[in-house]
Amino acid sequence: MSEKRPLILVCNDDGITAPGIRALIDVMNELGEVVVVAPDSPQSGMGHAITINSTLRCDPHKMDDGPQTEFACSGTPVDCVKLAVNVILPRKPDLLVSGINHGSNSSINVIYSGTMSAAMEGALESIPSIGFSLCDYAWDANFESAKPYIKSLAKQVLSNGMPQGVCLNVNIPKSENGEYKGMKVCRQARANWEEEFDARKDPRERSYYWLTGKFVNYDHGEDTDEWALENNYISIVPVTSDFTAHHAISTLNSWDIE
Amino acid sequence: MSEKRPLILVCNDDGITAPGIRALIDVMNELGEVVVVAPDSPQSGMGHAITINSTLRCDPHKMDDGPQTEFACSGTPVDCVKLAVNVILPRKPDLLVSGINHGSNSSINVIYSGTMSAAMEGALESIPSIGFSLCDYAWDANFESAKPYIKSLAKQVLSNGMPQGVCLNVNIPKSENGEYKGMKVCRQARANWEEEFDARKDPRERSYYWLTGKFVNYDHGEDTDEWALENNYISIVPVTSDFTAHHAISTLNSWDIE
Repeated sequence: MSEKRPLILVCNDDGITAPGIRALIDVMNELGEVVVVAPDSPQSGMGHAITINSTLRCDPHKMDDGPQTEFACSGTPVDCVKLAVNVILPRKPDLLVSGINHGSNSSINVIYSGTMSAAMEGALESIPSIGFSLCDYAWDANFESAKPYIKSLAKQVLSNGMPQGVCLNVNIPKSENGEYKGMKVCRQARANWEEEFDARKDPRERSYYWLTGKFVNYDHGEDTDEWALENNYISIVPVTSDFTAHHAISTLNSWDIE
Repeated sequence: MSEKRPLILVCNDDGITAPGIRALIDVMNELGEVVVVAPDSPQSGMGHAITINSTLRCDPHKMDDGPQTEFACSGTPVDCVKLAVNVILPRKPDLLVSGINHGSNSSINVIYSGTMSAAMEGALESIPSIGFSLCDYAWDANFESAKPYIKSLAKQVLSNGMPQGVCLNVNIPKSENGEYKGMKVCRQARANWEEEFDARKDPRERSYYWLTGKFVNYDHGEDTDEWALENNYISIVPVTSDFTAHHAISTLNSWDIE
């Protein structure tokens, strides 16, 4: 790391013009050579979707005078990572960062998150990867206070690497005064969304629905990301790409399965 | 189960007209009262995507003379489950089955799979849930040989329930002679897709890409789903909705995180 500047891939799911990714690019420009490959339109809630039934566009993009190189892609966050690694970058990057997402990806939100799917795709490609999210959905949210923490953690990952198949899900609480208690390694809280569909009639009297819902945390553990965020810590959850419920294997083996 | 027939929700990602879901409906009609809520168009590769920026349609659908009730939904497989549970069904179903997918969802494919995201959404709603996939992409694939195994496993899940937050990822090998060695409880093999983008020029000389790739299994373990499938077993992997890499927490706590 001392002689050669690391190669850093930046992605997100809110789209390449989002203030959150611009803040992340600012920080990464201090740490290495930055290539941005991000969706040309918002891709929130896309989970780990990939584009298999249509073509992908990926074209150079210029937004500001920063030293980074940028590409806008027509696909999902996962498509962006695959295109970056296989088509755009000269070599495997030393770090992938995704975000800063406008809104929380803590707890079960990780499963729906395009920001985190980009980071998970990085982990599958054996790239040390971090997804960053700010628990503030506002487009003009304050990303400044988080910057020193993001820089510090990115440096840690650049020097330590990451365990095989693991990436980090980092959530940053909304801070009124711009101060945080620090960063905390956590597990994913057991929580869920309780949906409330808003049912309406269109002008032709046909029904349609809007998905809405409220987040419910069932998990009172003080080792969870939700606890950390409520207590003004930045939460860091290591996320695995092995979805096997290893603890359930012995239970299933006790069943009468032929 | 003896007096009252169980309520079974059927979903998929290939769309409500796919032969795979018709085969699954056939089997479930033997076990309980079946309600189908499935996408009105193919949703393969949608991962755990949800529809938050557009409206959802969900309308009654009739395709054959079976006793099941059916609804076609404009959204993703996860949207279908959320709509079914919150809008359509009179009570929480006793079982959710998703598939039968036309093509494998073994190993890392679980992360991209709309079929499995429906099952995982079921698990989040505390519904015993199973995703079924046949390792044959053909639209006219032979689903008959798998039916007795699907029925047997669904009965096991109806009587045993499932561990909290866990669902089953069931993959069925393509069998030449319609015979299987049986079913085997497995862990997810460590494998990945090596992408190869097919780069082309459109009639206006602008570049575009098709995502292609080949599946590479790095994992020689005989306890994996890939091993089971290669050896003509139906693989059953319990899948968790807790993505925390618990084994990595102590590693991260050894870092210099402030």
